[in-house]
Amino acid sequence: MPPRRYAFGRADEATHPDSIRATLSEFLSTFIFVFAGEGSILALGASELVVVALAHALSLFAAVAASMNVSGGHVNPAVTLGALVGGRVSLLRSFYYWVAQLLGAVVAALLLRLTTDGMRPVGFGVAAGVGELNALLMEVVMTFGLVYTVYATAIDPKRGHLGTIAPLAIAFIVGANILVGGPFEGASMNPARAFGPALVGWRWRNHWIYWLGPFIGAALAGIIYEFGVIQPETPMHTHHQPLAPEDY
Amino acid sequence: MPPRRYAFGRADEATHPDSIRATLSEFLSTFIFVFAGEGSILALGASELVVVALAHALSLFAAVAASMNVSGGHVNPAVTLGALVGGRVSLLRSFYYWVAQLLGAVVAALLLRLTTDGMRPVGFGVAAGVGELNALLMEVVMTFGLVYTVYATAIDPKRGHLGTIAPLAIAFIVGANILVGGPFEGASMNPARAFGPALVGWRWRNHWIYWLGPFIGAALAGIIYEFGVIQPETPMHTHHQPLAPEDY
Amino acid sequence: MPPRRYAFGRADEATHPDSIRATLSEFLSTFIFVFAGEGSILALGASELVVVALAHALSLFAAVAASMNVSGGHVNPAVTLGALVGGRVSLLRSFYYWVAQLLGAVVAALLLRLTTDGMRPVGFGVAAGVGELNALLMEVVMTFGLVYTVYATAIDPKRGHLGTIAPLAIAFIVGANILVGGPFEGASMNPARAFGPALVGWRWRNHWIYWLGPFIGAALAGIIYEFGVIQPETPMHTHHQPLAPEDY
Amino acid sequence: MPPRRYAFGRADEATHPDSIRATLSEFLSTFIFVFAGEGSILALGASELVVVALAHALSLFAAVAASMNVSGGHVNPAVTLGALVGGRVSLLRSFYYWVAQLLGAVVAALLLRLTTDGMRPVGFGVAAGVGELNALLMEVVMTFGLVYTVYATAIDPKRGHLGTIAPLAIAFIVGANILVGGPFEGASMNPARAFGPALVGWRWRNHWIYWLGPFIGAALAGIIYEFGVIQPETPMHTHHQPLAPEDY
Repeated sequence: MPPRRYAFGRADEATHPDSIRATLSEFLSTFIFVFAGEGSILALGASELVVVALAHALSLFAAVAASMNVSGGHVNPAVTLGALVGGRVSLLRSFYYWVAQLLGAVVAALLLRLTTDGMRPVGFGVAAGVGELNALLMEVVMTFGLVYTVYATAIDPKRGHLGTIAPLAIAFIVGANILVGGPFEGASMNPARAFGPALVGWRWRNHWIYWLGPFIGAALAGIIYEFGVIQPETPMHTHHQPLAPEDY
Repeated sequence: MPPRRYAFGRADEATHPDSIRATLSEFLSTFIFVFAGEGSILALGASELVVVALAHALSLFAAVAASMNVSGGHVNPAVTLGALVGGRVSLLRSFYYWVAQLLGAVVAALLLRLTTDGMRPVGFGVAAGVGELNALLMEVVMTFGLVYTVYATAIDPKRGHLGTIAPLAIAFIVGANILVGGPFEGASMNPARAFGPALVGWRWRNHWIYWLGPFIGAALAGIIYEFGVIQPETPMHTHHQPLAPEDY
Repeated sequence: MPPRRYAFGRADEATHPDSIRATLSEFLSTFIFVFAGEGSILALGASELVVVALAHALSLFAAVAASMNVSGGHVNPAVTLGALVGGRVSLLRSFYYWVAQLLGAVVAALLLRLTTDGMRPVGFGVAAGVGELNALLMEVVMTFGLVYTVYATAIDPKRGHLGTIAPLAIAFIVGANILVGGPFEGASMNPARAFGPALVGWRWRNHWIYWLGPFIGAALAGIIYEFGVIQPETPMHTHHQPLAPEDY
Repeated sequence: MPPRRYAFGRADEATHPDSIRATLSEFLSTFIFVFAGEGSILALGASELVVVALAHALSLFAAVAASMNVSGGHVNPAVTLGALVGGRVSLLRSFYYWVAQLLGAVVAALLLRLTTDGMRPVGFGVAAGVGELNALLMEVVMTFGLVYTVYATAIDPKRGHLGTIAPLAIAFIVGANILVGGPFEGASMNPARAFGPALVGWRWRNHWIYWLGPFIGAALAGIIYEFGVIQPETPMHTHHQPLAPEDY
């Protein structure tokens, strides 16, 4: 942030890629915030939603933090797909991650069954009165917000000190989205999270939604961030000069 | 923090600008804390307030973190106005941000309508029995606290490592203020957050309050922080020497 | 943390000041944690406690973060007293801070009265069936935990990267303690927090408890941390050599 | 994270120790997340669980942050055992820590009894209808998740900036696990947390579970992380070269 200075703006600011990126970034962040904020009001009524949202946010934070420096902290096949679409992880490694993520979820669901003396996992499903396409779109939108946050805080090489709080941003947007989508379709945003309990509890109704929705949302976020928002470290496919610090 | 030392204080400490800034900072921070703490007790009764406050705080954290390094993480036309008043962003860029923020909020409200099969967004309004001027003053006070926090943690060039937790401070003061103002007038502190659902849900009662209140509060915070609290990197308009570290 | 190594322990480890400091630190931290954890179970019953605890923790985080680099982020006359007792702030500056903190709390309570159309602030008081001495002791214990945390994360010159999360530790221990002490005596830990609403709402029953308790607890924490736990940067009043990093 | 690059993967990636470590890390993190997320849904019903989970998470964060740089921030005999099994702390120091942790918990329970005018501490016990072996296994699994998180964020020498958020990850996984195990067996994960109230309240039913379970889980986590996930700073017992940064 430069020292105090009053200005109308530089002559080329209106068309400069940096202005456009910053403006797109404001658009997307405001979108993510208002979707969750207003959405939580539309979702009011389920008094136990806070417990579920907190459990997911708190544990996802620990899970992402614990794996961040070893594997990149995906913990979600949709995040791995988003990183694959953006060219940030190889296909072979993605395949390994997917197997590990699904296996982790299945073992967790099995151990839950053992420790609770046989309770059948619940998993995800579309609430009565909600259309399948509405639920699919909700998974797309929510996973888009999640993977966009992953890109901006954990993958973008210009993220700087934000890397420290990336696991928190990732965990919190999942918690916020559960407060919105929970009563409508559960708010998974993570095919492994949906698959483990579905397999162990053998509940497959609407299961395709929790694969297709997150994968579409994650791919969209990867493409938009990589080609729209991310600041290239070296100029690529452009004749503009990189911005000097004083050009803010 | 210097090593342990007992002292009454330096002779000129009473009138030194650094003492005055620190004292003003204590005054404002204690004000912000007590307003939210005591206010939350006056607001008790709405059992679903925690859900709404958490959804806003968690998602705003992700949204600010995701845009911090690209656009400065405003996600709020009032924050952009506060930065403009303090000379921290150009008028042209402010205009871009305002359009992006309003657009992001409208698209979020539209997608909420689609994914919930047509639910009409609620937006903000003054509760029965609360005066319009009381509600306006509440938006002024709350947005002042928010934009003051933005200045102290995200804009002040002396913020240092606080930049890492700036998105958290911004998100948490919004969450705390919702626990106070929610039952009285909704606690928006953000014209875009109010505008998107108002447009898509076509509810305009008291809408002016959610523009005027945040803009007054943000402008006040920008002016007070820039000219009262901020520590100049180089001496400006003063004959005092900058403080040496041992002058604490 | 050194590389993996199995050892019984160095010959002089049993009497080395570093071992004793680390052991004292484990004792005090486990005490703080168990007091809040078990205490929250004893306090169960008041369903609105979460709202109050969250409002205090979230807003205190923003308030401390906003003033950390300007004034040290006290926001509490008891914290200022603890820093004064440990020789970390001068008497004159403490006096300034106390006035600013009380003033901030009074203005907050006044503005709450204005914005809520005249609601009378509630402030703190001892619950029916709770003895005044029990309440006083609870304020002592809780403020001890708070100011000990302030010392360990914000004042100790060896705190390192913990400085970044100091405002979070300070805000969270206040939130946790409210979940314990709320139903018994309100859990203020902060004379300014108690004074503002008491003055504006003119409620003085038990008010002395909310000054004496926090001041005793803060002074105890300052003394114990300064003279028991803190690691001197240079040897003071001791013939022991400072520890080399490999002496862990 | 390297610049954008599309690739199938390097020839030896399939068998490279780094791939295997990253894959194991994804497995374990997804396991931890799904166990808490799905588990919280199976545990729904106890409306006061949020208060208890929050009080533990918030206070544990402050307690770990306050002791992190002095003692390593164990605050839990099981964490000390995990560090001992991994060769990260000496036997003598472990013994000191255990005594301090148990003492801290006992003093906390005593002071709670004093400040609440004699309420008898509750401690932990297995819920009606839950088998002792189920409860034991739940303590094993939950403490495994906790100590694995401690290793990955606070002990691993390659943790980097994650050290800053280690206390948060540790506190949050405890909070999340309480939301899962609370209604079944209380979710202690910490023998000191269980011992203090058991002694002061003289309740010993099932007490052995809260020692054996956490100790098994912690030892497992120490062994798996040390010998499976941790990235050696210098090659040990292996002929592989350390990875260059571009080998991601």
